Amino acid sequence: MHAITIPEPGGPDALVWAEVPDPVPGEGEVLVEVVAGAVNRADVLQRQGFYNPPPGASPYPGLECSGRITEIGPGVTGWSVGDEVCALLAGGGYAEKVAVPVGQLLPVPDGIDLTVAAALPEVTSTVWSNVFMVAHLRPGETLLVHGGSSGIGTMAIQLAKAVGARVAVTAGGPEKLARCAELGADILIDYREQDFVEELLKATDGAGADVILDIVGAKYLDRNVKALAVSGRLAIIGLQGGVKGELNLGVLLNKRAAVTATSLRGRPLAEKAVIVAAVREHVWPLIGSGVVRPVVDRTLPMSDAAEAHRVLESSAHIGKVLLRTPAA
Amino acid sequence: MHAITIPEPGGPDALVWAEVPDPVPGEGEVLVEVVAGAVNRADVLQRQGFYNPPPGASPYPGLECSGRITEIGPGVTGWSVGDEVCALLAGGGYAEKVAVPVGQLLPVPDGIDLTVAAALPEVTSTVWSNVFMVAHLRPGETLLVHGGSSGIGTMAIQLAKAVGARVAVTAGGPEKLARCAELGADILIDYREQDFVEELLKATDGAGADVILDIVGAKYLDRNVKALAVSGRLAIIGLQGGVKGELNLGVLLNKRAAVTATSLRGRPLAEKAVIVAAVREHVWPLIGSGVVRPVVDRTLPMSDAAEAHRVLESSAHIGKVLLRTPAA
Repeated sequence: MHAITIPEPGGPDALVWAEVPDPVPGEGEVLVEVVAGAVNRADVLQRQGFYNPPPGASPYPGLECSGRITEIGPGVTGWSVGDEVCALLAGGGYAEKVAVPVGQLLPVPDGIDLTVAAALPEVTSTVWSNVFMVAHLRPGETLLVHGGSSGIGTMAIQLAKAVGARVAVTAGGPEKLARCAELGADILIDYREQDFVEELLKATDGAGADVILDIVGAKYLDRNVKALAVSGRLAIIGLQGGVKGELNLGVLLNKRAAVTATSLRGRPLAEKAVIVAAVREHVWPLIGSGVVRPVVDRTLPMSDAAEAHRVLESSAHIGKVLLRTPAA
Repeated sequence: MHAITIPEPGGPDALVWAEVPDPVPGEGEVLVEVVAGAVNRADVLQRQGFYNPPPGASPYPGLECSGRITEIGPGVTGWSVGDEVCALLAGGGYAEKVAVPVGQLLPVPDGIDLTVAAALPEVTSTVWSNVFMVAHLRPGETLLVHGGSSGIGTMAIQLAKAVGARVAVTAGGPEKLARCAELGADILIDYREQDFVEELLKATDGAGADVILDIVGAKYLDRNVKALAVSGRLAIIGLQGGVKGELNLGVLLNKRAAVTATSLRGRPLAEKAVIVAAVREHVWPLIGSGVVRPVVDRTLPMSDAAEAHRVLESSAHIGKVLLRTPAA
């Protein structure tokens, strides 16, 4: 098969479409012929040499895909050759074939194109596990999403609105904010022009956000804590703005608030399976009924993954960037 | 009645036993004739002028007491004049009488002396709400308690052992650690002589603590995060070591860990009532059966509250320091 390899870490052109050996499904795995993969910020870090795959994972980038099952490994029940699926991966989505633990497989939701389904596993798992399983966003509460027009952001807006929460977003510029508003966002903050703490407090009569979904990390830590409501929960899922930040514990204590940080890729299989099962139970019906939709920015040939990374790094996209294989 | 007043903030002698008007029970409150109050670290801060009572609370210090109900306010059911009780307070425990919202009343547990019952409401509510309701300590997990010989510490050790957890403590010196061991602590760390992160990791084969109950705050923040296990929860309830600390979000994210900070005094009545009800349901039977015992360092006359504060500030005590009224 072909896969995107990284002979030497570096810029987008470090991604090389090359012939490699086929993966073999192990115990509890199936082989999926990939129709599309999707691009995540973590793939850029892996390309740069800063985020190595966890032990046992595929060496190729790609944390999600869609495709068809072509082989069933030992000990697998409930799935058949020919099933159209999408999947959460620990790696290997930028390839023509990938071996997937069954706990990370999802059926293609009703009404969703097989290629587009590649846009779903990572964002739905990340948003559901953090906003709902960790931070317990409840109807009537306010969620602040940083990067509202990203893949994660566009899914977080829709899921929070679907459960009856109020949604504030930050994004860079009016075009991205308009897209967030179309998806249901109630409070629009242009982080290039406005102070998000000030704007959020103004829009919530000083109450702040009950839950914040953050991809920035250190650079926003102090401001995020200031923007939290009493009993608020800050869920950090990315560290694009650095690792070490000052935490004002006095403010946190007065608000009886919590700071959590998680990642999906390194979790044990059992935890991933719990999350994927929750996504299938709670999110898949919302997608099947059309209440929540995948947001795809563009679809490029997988062999041109370099261009996809350039798009992601320029932040020119709204929603997900997909990579289609020759089989698509 | 008499109460400890604070005419001017300052050292222990700022506490003055003086005649003051009797409190009047409002809607949903009872009047309690106090037999004993107990001393908390927050009372020292209030005496120093750093921790004013929340709006509507008694101006006198004292966050818990025991005594007898002498008057029933409007709208109160389920309690009678003459009932022996202990209570969680927003203030006013250093007094001969105090008005108490019914949601913060607890019966005196079976087999516990009425005076000694004053040692229970604050520590049981703080430990249960943080270690169990917020941080969800589970059987088989490891709890690290900083200040294991304090009132909070001695209760945390016993409750964690009662639910089948493993307990590590830090304390200053062999005498305090020996008392922690008697109460059931498994891992004893002398913070004056040893590095608690190193000792804890050694004793847990590198795994760390699933839950940490911390009273130090900023000074321990970085080390506490290092001492957390994967999926660990750091519950901060005091800031004796400062307010602003550096948080390494990279470590937090890799561990999928959480930092929470809470206080009890400023919570709305409804939240306090939920905590007190949980304490009555889960902790009171353990005290009634003798599995968990109040640990009292000494009992002093309430008029000599200054001496009790000197004891607390010198950290010479093990467990709670009580203040008995002339009615005791």
